[in-house]
This record gives sequence, structure tokens and C-alpha cells, in this order.
Amino acid sequence: MNQSLSLAETFAQAQYRTSGNGPRNVQVLLDALQNVDGSTPSDMYGRGETISKFERKLADMLGKETAVFFPSGTMAQQIALRIWSDRGSSKTVAYHPLCHLEIHEQDGLRELHHLEPVLLANKERLITLEDVKNMPENTACLLLELPQREIGGELPDYAELEAISVYCREKGIALHMDGARLFEILPYYGKTAEEVCALFDSVYISFYKGVGGIAGAMLVGDADLAEQAKIWKRRHGGDLISLYPYILSSEYYLDLRLPKMAQYYEEAKELADLYNGCSCIRTRPEVPVSNMFHLHIDVPKETAETTIASVQADTGIALVSYLQETGETSCTTEISIGDLYREVPKEKLRKAIMLLGERLEVACKIVF
Amino acid sequence: MNQSLSLAETFAQAQYRTSGNGPRNVQVLLDALQNVDGSTPSDMYGRGETISKFERKLADMLGKETAVFFPSGTMAQQIALRIWSDRGSSKTVAYHPLCHLEIHEQDGLRELHHLEPVLLANKERLITLEDVKNMPENTACLLLELPQREIGGELPDYAELEAISVYCREKGIALHMDGARLFEILPYYGKTAEEVCALFDSVYISFYKGVGGIAGAMLVGDADLAEQAKIWKRRHGGDLISLYPYILSSEYYLDLRLPKMAQYYEEAKELADLYNGCSCIRTRPEVPVSNMFHLHIDVPKETAETTIASVQADTGIALVSYLQETGETSCTTEISIGDLYREVPKEKLRKAIMLLGERLEVACKIVF
Repeated sequence: MNQSLSLAETFAQAQYRTSGNGPRNVQVLLDALQNVDGSTPSDMYGRGETISKFERKLADMLGKETAVFFPSGTMAQQIALRIWSDRGSSKTVAYHPLCHLEIHEQDGLRELHHLEPVLLANKERLITLEDVKNMPENTACLLLELPQREIGGELPDYAELEAISVYCREKGIALHMDGARLFEILPYYGKTAEEVCALFDSVYISFYKGVGGIAGAMLVGDADLAEQAKIWKRRHGGDLISLYPYILSSEYYLDLRLPKMAQYYEEAKELADLYNGCSCIRTRPEVPVSNMFHLHIDVPKETAETTIASVQADTGIALVSYLQETGETSCTTEISIGDLYREVPKEKLRKAIMLLGERLEVACKIVF
Repeated sequence: MNQSLSLAETFAQAQYRTSGNGPRNVQVLLDALQNVDGSTPSDMYGRGETISKFERKLADMLGKETAVFFPSGTMAQQIALRIWSDRGSSKTVAYHPLCHLEIHEQDGLRELHHLEPVLLANKERLITLEDVKNMPENTACLLLELPQREIGGELPDYAELEAISVYCREKGIALHMDGARLFEILPYYGKTAEEVCALFDSVYISFYKGVGGIAGAMLVGDADLAEQAKIWKRRHGGDLISLYPYILSSEYYLDLRLPKMAQYYEEAKELADLYNGCSCIRTRPEVPVSNMFHLHIDVPKETAETTIASVQADTGIALVSYLQETGETSCTTEISIGDLYREVPKEKLRKAIMLLGERLEVACKIVF
């Protein structure tokens, strides 16, 4: 057992990986370009076939009038909320306290758009119909993130989602989806993208989560939304002369991985089940509803790091690349299933996680 | 003479081109990646060697403390002005009426940052020291564009630039350079990038003007500016998980074309001189000070289009790809010299422009 290597080092050196699609390196772009003809023209400031065909494809796939490609979801979502705020003549929008806009964007929505978000539910649970009914009356737009990533990727029951949609339509409140991982949840809901998107007025999707592209996002909605979104995209500095490196790679990986989403979901359930058989570990959700889940480990972060690193070094199976402290004696990490999971020999995986359980149990006894 | 083909068609089909580096297509990216190893890691949200080494290289080249890579100049410059405004506790900034922020950004500076630009000089001429001395006292930042693109790429005398810099330093006004074409003007000034940048507190440069990259920009200045700029970049939605397609191509084309800037400048002077020998045509500047100039043609736009198209079809030399109307009997276009100019046989070029002059003279007589 080599205890001198860190968690990240043992993860990087292991022969097999349980999560992801492989390293984020230039090969991802080279693969996407391998069959693209050099004479393919660049998009030009949001125009031209290279961008408009992909926008049309996504609008059709999601059943909306129009789609606008963005370099990032941060830009697309702030702009969507701003447009709904302007249309509703109210600066009030509503979302979850762990929404991307609230915790990962340096407060761009407030600083650039001067919107006033109301936080629904709390950091431990999903937004419910009850929360929605208690929103301020002047709420212009409600943002729902499907799945709610920061709590492990949980989802409301579909019936509740439908009820929230009906309520918002009755009240004239725009319903926007943070669908960064929309394709990843369709197998669980057993719905098409178009069916889920029909409940929403606008939807943002990402091309580098389960899809595994390089960067890029799409905002879909009605034609007026798209027109306004393009103006705001210019204002944000996102209307680049050429976005084709992201457009071409997004389309390549979307075509490659959309058919695999059901498999990722099944594999996530399988892996979560293995972890839930271990001492000191539980997954959230207990049964995943997409390709992702969180591991919660009830030992101090440093203990967990040493223990997992030793298992990774001894078994050659990469389980965890980083840990976040959640308390003095607890820590967490995120697992997202991609192409690499299926390459892990099942028997080796089972043994590695069993070994992890045994070593965590020993560590627990020493610590507590 | 084939009169049925348009200006754009004859430009596209001509054997030789007098401007640019070639078509903006995927080959531009493929060329930049040809010697990049697939295992090169992506930048990650502004961190990692792929981005930090390039930022360090540009900071050193321009003689500033730090540099921050941006997807676009629109984003970089709004942010620079916002930071200077915050530091100066004043919403007033000053720039030329044909500044990129004023005419190409859908008013992002006002809409997102609520800054209040004061327009100096007028649409016909450069900003002078006198204009600067008459700015409002509470001006936080003055933006100077070198060269002033929308008036053909004109430049102030270097002594006047130095005097403006001294004045701004005395008054505590930040001086920001729109240096989208900074490298293109160094041969005329006979200065290094570092020498010119030393007159300014912050500088933005672009990688897809004379450099001919795909997209991307750099903002350089002091360490505090960089730190603030990164926060605003996140807020704008420009802090992408991966910017490497732009970073790698920007570096590739910068290395390729920086040594050629003096040649582009000499070639621009040569081509402008040929045009200035034609009836109905003059260039602005009369003698270029960079790789660019504007053609002003004193015939109606449609007449000029037909005439130039016929010359392009008959000579196989592409001169003009588009025209903008400037009045009932006048129009203009922009010429930027790149790699393609040197491939044009000089004698054929001289004859083509002579033929253009003859045909414009005939057209003039018919029109007037």
C-alpha cells in the first residue's frame, strides 16, 4: 500500500475510472474535428449555417420556436431571467438557494441586471408546489433546475412538476428550466425532451455536462425571447465573431452521447448501490435519477482522502478525485457517470468498493 | 465581361486577393492545432498552464503586471471601464463617438454597467489633447482607440499621445487603450508594444484582427485590475470552463504574424498609393499608418458595385468584398492587408486598379 500518493494522484494514475468521459484535454476537440472539412465556413457573429442549423436542430428537439447558442450557461440564464423580468415588469425572480446563479456567478444577476431573486425552499430540499404558491405575487419568473445538482441531482415527481407548470401559467409567471443536465434525466422520467420542455417557457441546456463537450449552451424559447437574447448576448460580450469550436464539438458529442443517457442512468444506480453497501458511506439520492449522485462519507475529510487514495493505489480503480468538507467528521464528492464506467471490470470494482468499506470501517473506529 | 455576378461573388471567385489572410473557416483552427499534442490539458475556469502561460507572455510583452484572457473585446473593455469607474468613484468615462462600445455593442456599457460615456471629438476626426483637456472633471477613464478604426485607422502623432498620457496621469484619470490593432501600428510609430503601453494604465488587444486568429482578447494592467476583471468575467458569463480553442489559436497566429506587421504596413501604403492614382477614389488615411485603410469612392454604391465586380471578374483579382453607402453618390469599404497580398502579381494588380480607374471614370460621366 503506497500511502504517499494523494487522492488526486492515485485517481490520475489508476488504470480504470468510474466517472466521466476521460481527461478534459485538447484531444476532446481533435476528436470532434476529425471528420469536419476545413472548408466549413465559420459562423459570423451569430449568423451562418454552422450556427443556425445547430440552433434549428435543438429548437426542434426541444419543441420550441427558436434556439440561441451561447458560449456559457451563466450568460444564457442571466439573460433569460432578465428578459422575463422586463416582460413581466418586475425585478423579482425566484429560484433555489443552491441555484447556479446564486452560488457560482459572483452575483452577476444582481450586479449586471439588478434583479432581485427570492430564494425558495432551502439548501436541504427541492422546491415544492407549496413553495411556489408562497412566492411573492410580483414574481416575473421561476427558475427550476432539473436535476437539482447541488443536492446530488434530485428531481421532483413529474406530477408535481406538471402542477407547478400549471400554477405558473395560471398566474402569468414565466417558468424557466436550468436544464444543464436535461438529457440525463429523460430516462428516469420516461419522457422526451420535448414533453418536459413543454412545461416550461424557456430552457437552457449545457453541452459539457453529460454530453461531455468543450463548452457552450443553448437557450430555447419563443421567437421574441430569441431576438432579445441575441441583443443581450452582444451586450454581454458573448456574440463572438466565431463560436464554431464550441458549436461543432457540442453537436459532435451530443450526437455521440444522447443515445447513451439511459445506460449512464442504469450504471449510476448500479454504482450507487455498491457504495450504499459500504460502512460510513451513503449516496444522495439513495437511488439516482440521472447519471449523477453525491457520495456522503461520515469520516473526516483527511481520513477519507488517505483511505480512498490507498484503495485507488492498491486496486487501480479511480473512485474519487476530490473531497469537500461538510463538517468535522464528514465530507462529500460528486460522481457523474460517463463513457469510462463500462470499461471497469465489474468484479474488480465490487472488490475495490468492498475494500474501501473495510478500510473506512477501520478508520471510523480509530477516529471515533 | 460578366456583369451578372455580384461584388461578393466575383470577390469569392477571383484567383488573387488583395486583403486578409484567407477565408474564415475551420481550416484556421485545424492549422493552429496541427502541432498541439492531444494530451495538452484544458484550462479550467481561467486556471491552468494553458491559459496562465499565455497571459504571462502577453503581460511581459506589453510590460504590464498581469493579463487576463477574454473570449471577446466587448467583454474585456466594458469590464476595464467599469473597474476604472469604480476605482474613480465616477460613472463618467470618455471615448470617441465611433468607439466600438458606442456603435457595436448594443449599448452594453450603459445597459449592464450604467456608465455614462462622454463623447469626445467628432465622427470626422481623432481625439486631441484639447478635447481631453475639456473633458468633465469627474471623468474616471479615457479610452483611446489606436488606430481609430472607423475613420480608416488614423493615429495621433506620438508626441500628442504622450501629452495626453501625461495630462491624464496629472489629473488622476485612468487611460485605457483599445488596442485591437496595437501590433499593426508599431511599425509606423517605430516603438515597441511595451513603450506604447507604458503610456496607458490598461490595454485591450485582439487576436483576430491583424493577428488573424479565431476569437479572443487580452486585457492587461495592474494585479488589482486583473483580479477584479476575473470577477467581472465570471459575472458576464465569460469565465468558460475551457477557452483553449481560442487561447491556442491566438498564440499560434500571434507567433506567426507578429513578425509580418511591418510588411503588412508597407504593403498597405503601396496599395493605397495605387488606389489614390485612380479617378473617383481616395484612401483614408491618404498614407496608411497600419495594415488598414478605407477606400472612399465618389460614385453611387450600386454603380461602384457593378464596376468593381466587372474588374474582379475580368482580372481575377479580388479588390473589394462589400461596400457601404455614405451618401447618394458615395460609398466606402475597409481594406486590411494580410498574408494574401504578397501573392498577388504586382503587374496584374497595377493593371486591375488602372482598369478600375478607367471604368469608374466612365461610370462617373454617365452618372453625373
